[in-house]
Amino acid sequence: MRMSKYYAPTLKEVPNDTEIKSHELLIRGGFIRKTASGVYTYLPLGTKVLKKIENIVREEMENIGSQEILMPIIQPAEIWQKSGRWDDYGPEMMKLKDRHDRDFTLGPTHEEMITTIIKNELRSYKQLPISLFQIANKYRDEIRPRFGVLRAREFIMKDAYSFHDSEESLNETYEKFYKAYENILERLGVDYLVVEADTGAIGGSNSHEFQIKAEYGESTIYYCDCGYAATDERAESNVVFDTTNEKENNINKVDTPNVKTIDDVATFLKTDKNKIVKSLLFKSREGWVLALIRGDYELNIAKLKTFLSDQTLTLGEPDEIYKTFGVEIGFIGPVGIKNVKIIADHSIKNMKNFVVGGMEKDKHYINVNLNRDFKIDYFADIRMVSKGEPCPKCGDPLKEIKGIEVGQVFKLGTKYSEKLNAYYTAENGKTKPFIMGCYGWGVSRTLGAIVEQLHDDYGMIWPRNIAPFEIVIIPVSTKQKELVDKAEEIYNLLKDKYDVLYDDRDASPGFKFKDADLIGIPLKVVLGKKMKNGKVEIKLRYEKNSQEVDISKSYDDLLKKIEQKLNEYDPKIYFNSIDKD
Amino acid sequence: MRMSKYYAPTLKEVPNDTEIKSHELLIRGGFIRKTASGVYTYLPLGTKVLKKIENIVREEMENIGSQEILMPIIQPAEIWQKSGRWDDYGPEMMKLKDRHDRDFTLGPTHEEMITTIIKNELRSYKQLPISLFQIANKYRDEIRPRFGVLRAREFIMKDAYSFHDSEESLNETYEKFYKAYENILERLGVDYLVVEADTGAIGGSNSHEFQIKAEYGESTIYYCDCGYAATDERAESNVVFDTTNEKENNINKVDTPNVKTIDDVATFLKTDKNKIVKSLLFKSREGWVLALIRGDYELNIAKLKTFLSDQTLTLGEPDEIYKTFGVEIGFIGPVGIKNVKIIADHSIKNMKNFVVGGMEKDKHYINVNLNRDFKIDYFADIRMVSKGEPCPKCGDPLKEIKGIEVGQVFKLGTKYSEKLNAYYTAENGKTKPFIMGCYGWGVSRTLGAIVEQLHDDYGMIWPRNIAPFEIVIIPVSTKQKELVDKAEEIYNLLKDKYDVLYDDRDASPGFKFKDADLIGIPLKVVLGKKMKNGKVEIKLRYEKNSQEVDISKSYDDLLKKIEQKLNEYDPKIYFNSIDKD
Repeated sequence: MRMSKYYAPTLKEVPNDTEIKSHELLIRGGFIRKTASGVYTYLPLGTKVLKKIENIVREEMENIGSQEILMPIIQPAEIWQKSGRWDDYGPEMMKLKDRHDRDFTLGPTHEEMITTIIKNELRSYKQLPISLFQIANKYRDEIRPRFGVLRAREFIMKDAYSFHDSEESLNETYEKFYKAYENILERLGVDYLVVEADTGAIGGSNSHEFQIKAEYGESTIYYCDCGYAATDERAESNVVFDTTNEKENNINKVDTPNVKTIDDVATFLKTDKNKIVKSLLFKSREGWVLALIRGDYELNIAKLKTFLSDQTLTLGEPDEIYKTFGVEIGFIGPVGIKNVKIIADHSIKNMKNFVVGGMEKDKHYINVNLNRDFKIDYFADIRMVSKGEPCPKCGDPLKEIKGIEVGQVFKLGTKYSEKLNAYYTAENGKTKPFIMGCYGWGVSRTLGAIVEQLHDDYGMIWPRNIAPFEIVIIPVSTKQKELVDKAEEIYNLLKDKYDVLYDDRDASPGFKFKDADLIGIPLKVVLGKKMKNGKVEIKLRYEKNSQEVDISKSYDDLLKKIEQKLNEYDPKIYFNSIDKD
Repeated sequence: MRMSKYYAPTLKEVPNDTEIKSHELLIRGGFIRKTASGVYTYLPLGTKVLKKIENIVREEMENIGSQEILMPIIQPAEIWQKSGRWDDYGPEMMKLKDRHDRDFTLGPTHEEMITTIIKNELRSYKQLPISLFQIANKYRDEIRPRFGVLRAREFIMKDAYSFHDSEESLNETYEKFYKAYENILERLGVDYLVVEADTGAIGGSNSHEFQIKAEYGESTIYYCDCGYAATDERAESNVVFDTTNEKENNINKVDTPNVKTIDDVATFLKTDKNKIVKSLLFKSREGWVLALIRGDYELNIAKLKTFLSDQTLTLGEPDEIYKTFGVEIGFIGPVGIKNVKIIADHSIKNMKNFVVGGMEKDKHYINVNLNRDFKIDYFADIRMVSKGEPCPKCGDPLKEIKGIEVGQVFKLGTKYSEKLNAYYTAENGKTKPFIMGCYGWGVSRTLGAIVEQLHDDYGMIWPRNIAPFEIVIIPVSTKQKELVDKAEEIYNLLKDKYDVLYDDRDASPGFKFKDADLIGIPLKVVLGKKMKNGKVEIKLRYEKNSQEVDISKSYDDLLKKIEQKLNEYDPKIYFNSIDKD
């Protein structure tokens, strides 16, 4: 490809609304352009990388025998009403009406759709197991889209669904997808981690996430050398909370004027945060829920949602809480509160004589005790784990790292097949609901995640397999006929074997080098001053110094060196080696 | 691929709502399934063919240097408001609001979008010409979706857009796309016609359509051996209308009780239809338009829209006409009508003493004459041409054929660049609006169009390049170990070189043959009774008799014969030869 005819508008300036490096670089490098908040156009460079990612994902799907299909983006409301998710999904679901006033959604996912498609047509256990996948646009109306393609409202996903007649068969297929996802990440050439994950709105029993490590990743992962790794939403608590022999004092309501936060309460009452119980009100499908946790810990909403099997759960709005309970949120507490379900984290089980909100403006209770002063409906692990806590598997201190989720696999069980009446006939003649699995991969998200992991001050550093071009040929001047002729020769020599960009623009060498670094092309072939001695220079994207290659007699040596360089090129290893001190 | 594990649910019964053969066969063959009216899922077979079509289209685009991009499906309203098409497009445009109440459309096309993307970033004449394409979903909320994927509400298009600094440059690129589209059709292996076309809602000066010939095509094409070919919407009239020396009689209003249609009027008044002028009221952007045409001709609304440069034009509703004019539509006429613009077809220019509606219930005027009794604002060619009329190029009688439009190319000129302020800097330093072209290809529509052309009573007959599988291997029994072993051997022998389906199902030979014919696989390799003598049978999809091939000593002969058969396979030629008598 000749750069002079290629549509790759690069920018020198940092765009306004880019919070993270990958977003900035993809825009500056001319890979993407914003059309609306969270809605992007992929320009030729971005599309080229996307297609390479897509092809790797497609090949790995085909390798495990998954069959490609293409489902509609606009999905009729009825199937979502049947599963109960039409309302559950909330405002993140984009909805529209057609000209006949029928409701549709721009699908955020396709469990209802695939189950509806196969029901009545996939009938016999003999056809099982089977898995189907598609690569298509998905929609999620994020309240605050950000981070470019990492959290967009329109995005490209590979989603796959599998159907089984036994848990063993589901487990086997789950393992196949797990392995395929690892293969994808290996082929992409990035540093990654597989973690236990929360199942969220998709539901089901088991789930793993495939995370690309990155300094500014959206996910926090806790892991241990023993092999345990989980997202912060999922990571289990293994802390043993101290017991105490403290005598129960008499409960007392005290003045705490304008003292609302845990920190304020601790300071005002001259006590430790671990002597205070934090009370948080949530709206669930079945009414109000009060969640309690020790004041120095953070509540894990994902765990609470999972415990309650209610993905619609949201933190109560201050106005609504005031209207319902007649108290500001800072003074909410479990003593005397009515018509709420109380869920407490294990961290408060052994607490004695603690502080809670007074259910009255500017008041707190002190010397509160469980059972005597109020009752807990359920104890559960609803706490955010933190670095250094004991690993739930081996007890060693947990480590923390950031990651960007690009893939997730789920064991769904019969959740959707039962709700949508999708049954098969088993060997014994009985009809049974399909046991299902589902497997998502964020194709457009992968683009952003890789840049977030692999970049430096000058731009992106693409792994070879998905680089928009493998090689860029740069003559330092287009005025010198000899340089241009040789550059053309080398371009013609390389372009059938490699994905080559020939920077034939009438621009300064500095300008061209900057663009090549920004775009992140693995290898440069530079025709400059050394050409007087018949030499070109070659250099990997992250190398400081270039290597001279003599082309005065033949191109054999150049071809050999290029192949060598490209084979040794590995940005992942390069980054890991500079990370270590 | 093993058929036992392949998701291809075939049906014996003809589905209910399929009006044409391609729709029926694609459903019966397990290629597509309906999700909602005009919204389809592509099952593995359908997806496989779609991807093959898509790849041919992509390659031909890349061959002419067009660069692939990917634009959003959800487009912000603002850009459509700027071009004026937000309202123009009418109820066919699917619209939605996001959670912040901002308006979006599910793009029916992307002229506004591409122009907005390149403006301010494509700046210099040096970068021109350039063309960008994408392959993506499009949406059109058809009032009555029908014919399966031929007229769907969600469909896959390749759309391309080019930018130029001169008409010559536009013409060159237009020619390149024209040629690329011919290449696509050649590679698809179908019989086609390129015709002059109306520009419709897209606008611009020139346009050609690429039509796949089919008995039940939606488009009517008039063509001539001299090379002229145009859609019925576009085909120009070359009829010279008779002049007459008739004296003008006195106009007279006569009773025509309950006589409304042209046929009724002719019968009742004992006159010829060519002595009656048909009056049709349309609503335009600027008010009512009365279109007049000779009673024995049909009005061409596309021509009227083009003449008025108003794609919003619609035939007036009877109720609204009655409210506005106080007359039923059967009695509308040009004499005495107020506040309408009158456009007349050339066919009435030379008429004398004709009949028109009386603008009063149960009345018609007779002996009406132009200029004396009413005035025409404009004469124009707004007539549907018909078979046998003189070709506008050479005068020979026009022939008629049906086709299905799969591609269309347009010279847009500066329509969109001016409205959306997309300018470049010319060599002389002046800024000018881009001259644009646009080029659409219906990818999912092609799937239906090909089946509509290439099928017989037994099913589809896919051209080799896009067949879901090239070869199907059928052992007539799965009980005989020898047959199965040989079938496996042949499958392993062929599957790396060809796209092979191995029908390993435990089913009757008749069942398997029917499915193979329905799905339309070019070549069958059958292992049956002849295997006793070491022979398999091979047969092309449309052949009556199979050929025996000895495999007792080696597979060399089989491999050679298969390659020969597949090379000679050409359903297009086969159909053309049976069409001729």
